[in-house]
Amino acid sequence: MKNYLDCIPCFMSQALRAGKTAGLEDKQIKKLLDEVGMMISDIPMESSPPETGAVIYQKIREITGIDDPFLSIKQKNTREALEMYPELRQLVRRSDDPLLTAIRLAIAGNVIDFGVNKAFNLQKDIEQILSQDFAIFDYDSFRESLRKTEKVYYLGDNAGESVFDRILIEELHKPVVFVVREIPVINDVTRADAIMAGLDKVAEIVSSGSTAPGNVPALCDPSFMETLYQADMIISKGQGNYEGLSDEPIPVFFLLKVKCHVIARDLGVTENSIVLKKSDFKHL
Amino acid sequence: MKNYLDCIPCFMSQALRAGKTAGLEDKQIKKLLDEVGMMISDIPMESSPPETGAVIYQKIREITGIDDPFLSIKQKNTREALEMYPELRQLVRRSDDPLLTAIRLAIAGNVIDFGVNKAFNLQKDIEQILSQDFAIFDYDSFRESLRKTEKVYYLGDNAGESVFDRILIEELHKPVVFVVREIPVINDVTRADAIMAGLDKVAEIVSSGSTAPGNVPALCDPSFMETLYQADMIISKGQGNYEGLSDEPIPVFFLLKVKCHVIARDLGVTENSIVLKKSDFKHL
Repeated sequence: MKNYLDCIPCFMSQALRAGKTAGLEDKQIKKLLDEVGMMISDIPMESSPPETGAVIYQKIREITGIDDPFLSIKQKNTREALEMYPELRQLVRRSDDPLLTAIRLAIAGNVIDFGVNKAFNLQKDIEQILSQDFAIFDYDSFRESLRKTEKVYYLGDNAGESVFDRILIEELHKPVVFVVREIPVINDVTRADAIMAGLDKVAEIVSSGSTAPGNVPALCDPSFMETLYQADMIISKGQGNYEGLSDEPIPVFFLLKVKCHVIARDLGVTENSIVLKKSDFKHL
Repeated sequence: MKNYLDCIPCFMSQALRAGKTAGLEDKQIKKLLDEVGMMISDIPMESSPPETGAVIYQKIREITGIDDPFLSIKQKNTREALEMYPELRQLVRRSDDPLLTAIRLAIAGNVIDFGVNKAFNLQKDIEQILSQDFAIFDYDSFRESLRKTEKVYYLGDNAGESVFDRILIEELHKPVVFVVREIPVINDVTRADAIMAGLDKVAEIVSSGSTAPGNVPALCDPSFMETLYQADMIISKGQGNYEGLSDEPIPVFFLLKVKCHVIARDLGVTENSIVLKKSDFKHL
């Protein structure tokens, strides 16, 4: 997905929120906003939002001098999600359609997102998403692809969320490669975060090479992108990965909660929808 | 009120909204956002939000080459408000407390504000505000000041809104000076807009000299500010005037609907509150 004009004020809001969450002082936040403001004229409208995000979060790292300013928040989220894990696992096993319930939980975990909104109520969101209708629901194709594929590439999103991804991965019953960011960017999942969430017990963990809050082809390792082009089935979590990959010719299912009006418009759904969307490109 | 960090992303959102409302093409809007972005590092945090607004709307005039890009929208709003005028006038006359009902209507008119939100439903907002509790309600002081004063300075806000101000002015039963912006800025009321709304029938119309979307002392004529410092009673409409004048030693009653979380925090009320607030400075 390319940048929309509406993304530009949002970059500024993201920088403000990220600066506050990272604990910057007001003067440092103003400096961050100054620098993001000066960057705006360099943002090509043909690039995707996570590419700009990559530069913003790089600035935050420079200003704070900290490589992973969201580390303690990510660890707290992951711990809290891990506490819920046994109960959610039972919920899936006892449900009529464990795969679908696991998909819903994976989307519920997607509310743990500081790039979009700091305030969320996980328990309430889980309850809501367990009964919410999908705005796009390519579930039959998903099951069909899953049945045929030998391997699933699963593109992670946020750190705490990956505990919920683990629950879905356990229901796929196929070998899974869980894809993480190369470096810490906001609260996105890195290799260390994924291991803390127990992903190493259920999947092979691989970095996409991306330094952006999303797997953007231009910012991923070329060899990783080649892997995606050759893949038979990819599951992409969250908005950042959708923004980066929605125009790529890969067999991907986008799994997300729509948290912004720009992505809602791009997908042709309303804000707060939940989506399981098959890309238009070749699927098994 | 000084700038808060939260105002900075909002400047960018305002520029985007203003550019769209003024009918700019996407490329022009991007240019506007580029320029506003580059301005951010020059924004002193000690200045008030309308001072930055003044520069943003100056950029819009430069880019469009049009002095009053919101003219047709202002005229439409004023025409629609004038159509409601006879009925609202009756509503005031038939009410138990005509002055208070007129105050409520003046606040209801304050929803006609493109600087904050393009979408509003005037009829619905009127009904709501007629029965809504005030979060700050210095009505007794207001009546007392009104009883004693010889003249009221009434600081207008938006163009269509001024029809509602006219209804309140008619209930004051005192000589009124209605204060307008010097030049068109967003949909703020100018002399021409005020005359279209019929304000010349009920008040003397005076320009503050302000080129900002609010009466900011630094951007008003010094002689006008001197008038305010000598005044016995001032009624200030809307957020922009509150932002510009909340720290000034003048006997003012702020009348507004709180449409942003920053002003809500500054006033110590919740968003969407309605407020009739007496300033701390000397009153009659």
